[in-house]
Amino acid sequence: MPTYKAPIDEVMFLLNDVFRIERHNNLPGFSDATPDVVEAILTEGAKLSEGVLLPLNQSGDRDGCVRNADASVTTPNGFRDAYRLYAEGGWVGISGDPAYGGQGLPQAIGAIINEFCTSANMAFTMYPGLTKSAFSALLAHGSDEQKQTYVPKLIAGEWLGTMNLTEPQCGTDLGLLRTKAVPQPDGSYAITGQKIFISAGEHDLTPNIIHLVLARIEGAPAGTKGISLFIVPKMMVNPDGSLGARNSVSCGSIEHKMGIHGNATCVMNYDGATGWLVGEPNKGLNAMFVMMNEARLGVANQGLAQSEVAYQNAAAYAKERLQGRSISGRKAEDKVADPIIVHPDVRRMLLTIRAFNEAARALLMSTAIEVDLAHQAGDKALAQRAEDRLGLMTPILKGVFTDLGFDNCVLAQQVLGGHGYVAEWGMEQFVRDARIAMIYEGANGIQALDLVGRKLPKDGGRAFMSFMSEVAQTLESVKDDAELTFDVKAMKQGLDRLQQATLWFMQNAMAKPDNAGAGSTDYMHLFGLVALGHMWLLMCKAALVAKAEGRGDPARWASKLAVGRFFMERMLPETGTRLARITAGADAVMAMPAEAF
Amino acid sequence: MPTYKAPIDEVMFLLNDVFRIERHNNLPGFSDATPDVVEAILTEGAKLSEGVLLPLNQSGDRDGCVRNADASVTTPNGFRDAYRLYAEGGWVGISGDPAYGGQGLPQAIGAIINEFCTSANMAFTMYPGLTKSAFSALLAHGSDEQKQTYVPKLIAGEWLGTMNLTEPQCGTDLGLLRTKAVPQPDGSYAITGQKIFISAGEHDLTPNIIHLVLARIEGAPAGTKGISLFIVPKMMVNPDGSLGARNSVSCGSIEHKMGIHGNATCVMNYDGATGWLVGEPNKGLNAMFVMMNEARLGVANQGLAQSEVAYQNAAAYAKERLQGRSISGRKAEDKVADPIIVHPDVRRMLLTIRAFNEAARALLMSTAIEVDLAHQAGDKALAQRAEDRLGLMTPILKGVFTDLGFDNCVLAQQVLGGHGYVAEWGMEQFVRDARIAMIYEGANGIQALDLVGRKLPKDGGRAFMSFMSEVAQTLESVKDDAELTFDVKAMKQGLDRLQQATLWFMQNAMAKPDNAGAGSTDYMHLFGLVALGHMWLLMCKAALVAKAEGRGDPARWASKLAVGRFFMERMLPETGTRLARITAGADAVMAMPAEAF
Repeated sequence: MPTYKAPIDEVMFLLNDVFRIERHNNLPGFSDATPDVVEAILTEGAKLSEGVLLPLNQSGDRDGCVRNADASVTTPNGFRDAYRLYAEGGWVGISGDPAYGGQGLPQAIGAIINEFCTSANMAFTMYPGLTKSAFSALLAHGSDEQKQTYVPKLIAGEWLGTMNLTEPQCGTDLGLLRTKAVPQPDGSYAITGQKIFISAGEHDLTPNIIHLVLARIEGAPAGTKGISLFIVPKMMVNPDGSLGARNSVSCGSIEHKMGIHGNATCVMNYDGATGWLVGEPNKGLNAMFVMMNEARLGVANQGLAQSEVAYQNAAAYAKERLQGRSISGRKAEDKVADPIIVHPDVRRMLLTIRAFNEAARALLMSTAIEVDLAHQAGDKALAQRAEDRLGLMTPILKGVFTDLGFDNCVLAQQVLGGHGYVAEWGMEQFVRDARIAMIYEGANGIQALDLVGRKLPKDGGRAFMSFMSEVAQTLESVKDDAELTFDVKAMKQGLDRLQQATLWFMQNAMAKPDNAGAGSTDYMHLFGLVALGHMWLLMCKAALVAKAEGRGDPARWASKLAVGRFFMERMLPETGTRLARITAGADAVMAMPAEAF
Repeated sequence: MPTYKAPIDEVMFLLNDVFRIERHNNLPGFSDATPDVVEAILTEGAKLSEGVLLPLNQSGDRDGCVRNADASVTTPNGFRDAYRLYAEGGWVGISGDPAYGGQGLPQAIGAIINEFCTSANMAFTMYPGLTKSAFSALLAHGSDEQKQTYVPKLIAGEWLGTMNLTEPQCGTDLGLLRTKAVPQPDGSYAITGQKIFISAGEHDLTPNIIHLVLARIEGAPAGTKGISLFIVPKMMVNPDGSLGARNSVSCGSIEHKMGIHGNATCVMNYDGATGWLVGEPNKGLNAMFVMMNEARLGVANQGLAQSEVAYQNAAAYAKERLQGRSISGRKAEDKVADPIIVHPDVRRMLLTIRAFNEAARALLMSTAIEVDLAHQAGDKALAQRAEDRLGLMTPILKGVFTDLGFDNCVLAQQVLGGHGYVAEWGMEQFVRDARIAMIYEGANGIQALDLVGRKLPKDGGRAFMSFMSEVAQTLESVKDDAELTFDVKAMKQGLDRLQQATLWFMQNAMAKPDNAGAGSTDYMHLFGLVALGHMWLLMCKAALVAKAEGRGDPARWASKLAVGRFFMERMLPETGTRLARITAGADAVMAMPAEAF
């Protein structure tokens, strides 16, 4: 059975040494997040993930969810009890608004707890996962009455929320949406249509489920301009907050899928269900985008989380499994063979994963801090900068973290050889579970188009320029550090390639948009590598400071520098291939007629 | 349900235009393989794969194999009937020695049929798959009596064969093997031990199963020098060829695994089972290597085969699924949206797969032709050149085809979005099935070490130099072709990088072998890209000739050139990243102590 240990030390290093969150202690939320409090919270989160959620991961995968004859859904054994602990611990609302019962801690802390729980049990953590996005959307766009009725229950985890966009004929292209909403005399709407791929659409964890549903009000314009957002509770809510009658929404079936078997992926049938409009008619996408952007960061986190737990198990195996001898001379004379960690190719696999994990956690945390700054800073310029950065980084994190998170699970599985392929060791589950993150909340190709087509040119490229100048500043700040000479040189080359790629789009994509489309995925990954490299510079710098000040274990700082060096030597050079592909343009891609495929 | 159409046109193009197999019609086997005969055989193979095997692929995955209380194993519904057709069609022995009842056709033809069947149903095709390697090993190392007793039955598919190497403590490192063999008065051996991960170890397809088992004769030296190979039949064989008593070998359990559910992966328990020595005592690995090398090419073929069927289904979906509009202006005015094939990023995914598939099929065929030449040529120099090339290419094909084959299944799955993640469409099964090919028959990291540590330096680098000079010759032959100017330039750069990487190993790996280990996987992929690029040059050249001669559909040759260009522009540049990683050396890889992982 796989093991997991929440990486608390790494997190504390990031919070205190790399990002120095005490700088922000003038902000609400951060003022409560003293290092001691944070460490205590992380320790509790670690206990929950390691002790409660991890033991249910394999059994949840094996047993899956069951849709019963009455259309109810039973979650795997143990999920109900685990969820009770999760909700009672206040974890759903850890970063939620205190005015509605939330803990009010920074998003950065919430993201870390989310990583821990997702590493331990991704399918389980998806149940409360979308609820956080749901109450954010309601807080941003709901009426006061809606906020009062639903948000406290969601933040407390008494009810859970879902996100209903996809229909059989309508995935990426929401303009094709058909679910209809007919106004009723009481101000509600009758919602009719079928939604598919609805995560946690039906389950037995909470007495009510609050569906946020996109639908088209009768007579509304075609396309995306006629889409509205509705609250459709599974159980009607009485004025006093108690539960009333069953609404006309039900689970038609659950999908048989590659992974996340513990999470019920439902076909949801709306048969004139009662729904309540959120925000203005035909402006549903604005509200849904609040939910979607938060959800995208959550999905990015899934890529990291699966990569982390996969790494831990592969590294443990590599240190124990005796097989063959080191090519540079035997290392374990007393044993029948050396542990396979002696082999450079095994280390290559492990270091590839780890060099991503540590930098990805840093990048996710820095982005989560931007969420906090964007919402809370009194300083308008700072808030705008944070908003810009968040918009720019969201598609990169979603696309790159989930692509690499999956690749890393595959690498980790490879370390175990045949044992990685059988269910017993749990590695193949990480691969199957991680795979979905590249697809949902906007397939990664859509993230790349969002980056290149919208986020990059937005406001005259302001967000991009701010990113470039921040990295240049970091490079300037470490340029005289003898231990980072190589890293600085490598990063300058990476940054230069990102600049070249961006210029190439400016010069070649206006006249021919296919040039942007053909290079978008490569651009997203090029950008991601540079952004991860930037985190490595910051982490190496912080490690050198700690080492110079004599803090912590010197071996730890040496490892940090070694993994950083591995990233610069082995992973950043991929920027060259990415640039070559981008500047090849769209000609070969578009040459063949559709029927030749 | 997924569809599949065997790519007969592609195969005929390769056989007749690219490799012109009529050149070899002085050789046995080839003389019978006239274009008409070949096309007829391919058509029959296509019928079998499309009509019989494909319909059992999803159900075989869903139902899996069952081990019964009496230790027998039941294969999925329909497998028995399908196997009867397969065996009666003579497909097991298609390239088998006619002296033992085989069809005697070239390995190149056998490999193609194997591709078709594996695309249609990988788990099924694995049952007869290892039997081909088993009779090759017996023909090379068995006694006359063993050949007469077992080979005709195996070639006819009346019995099937297996390969028993792995034990719980012994995977890659066969020196750790413990299964023991005790000589008996009648000349047989009593075999005792446990083997794991035995594909098709037990099943209900044939009345007998012939296990080829590695074991250590009592008193034999430790390590790999004391390993012998034994035939252990499931049912004892009477002198007249009829079946006798049950041997003491049985299936202890079957593995629950990520994919290939239709194939029984068994724990095999040998409890003093009667076995017969094959070849000399303590020389078992020599005989097993015959089997293993053939099996490795078969596994390479699995990478290609899964990539091909995944491509076909993703391309079909991309042409049908309506979603969004082309960024260069709408294409299907009469529809609610354009088919997603209009999007450059979707084409990028499809072309990445296809540019591999077409070149990989060519490379596999050219390697299979070398197998034929090595075995059959009267010309000693030619036979040696063929043997060299086969040795060099085997690890590259196994490692690169299975890595890219898997990556391609993941890409193809991505084209379908959420529909790729649910079982219904079959795409996620291709991913799960393809994953094993990177692991078994020597994990890909082992292939890379075999390439760098053994195949490259062997005979003073003779095989490598012969490869380099052949590619240089091809480049010379197309250098004046105006339509290939870009391709020639790109390939020259790729070839130059391969040369540089090889030189770097020569200069840096002698003194420090870890430098070879740390770069071995990147080297294998660098080599693979160049070898695939070489196939693209040959295919483009052949397409230009056909076009100039007015043969075939001009649109087909235009597609061939377009996909070739895509390979050169988008895939070959990865050689740059690979070279950078190789020349980074082992320092960062080996820097951390084991406990820091």
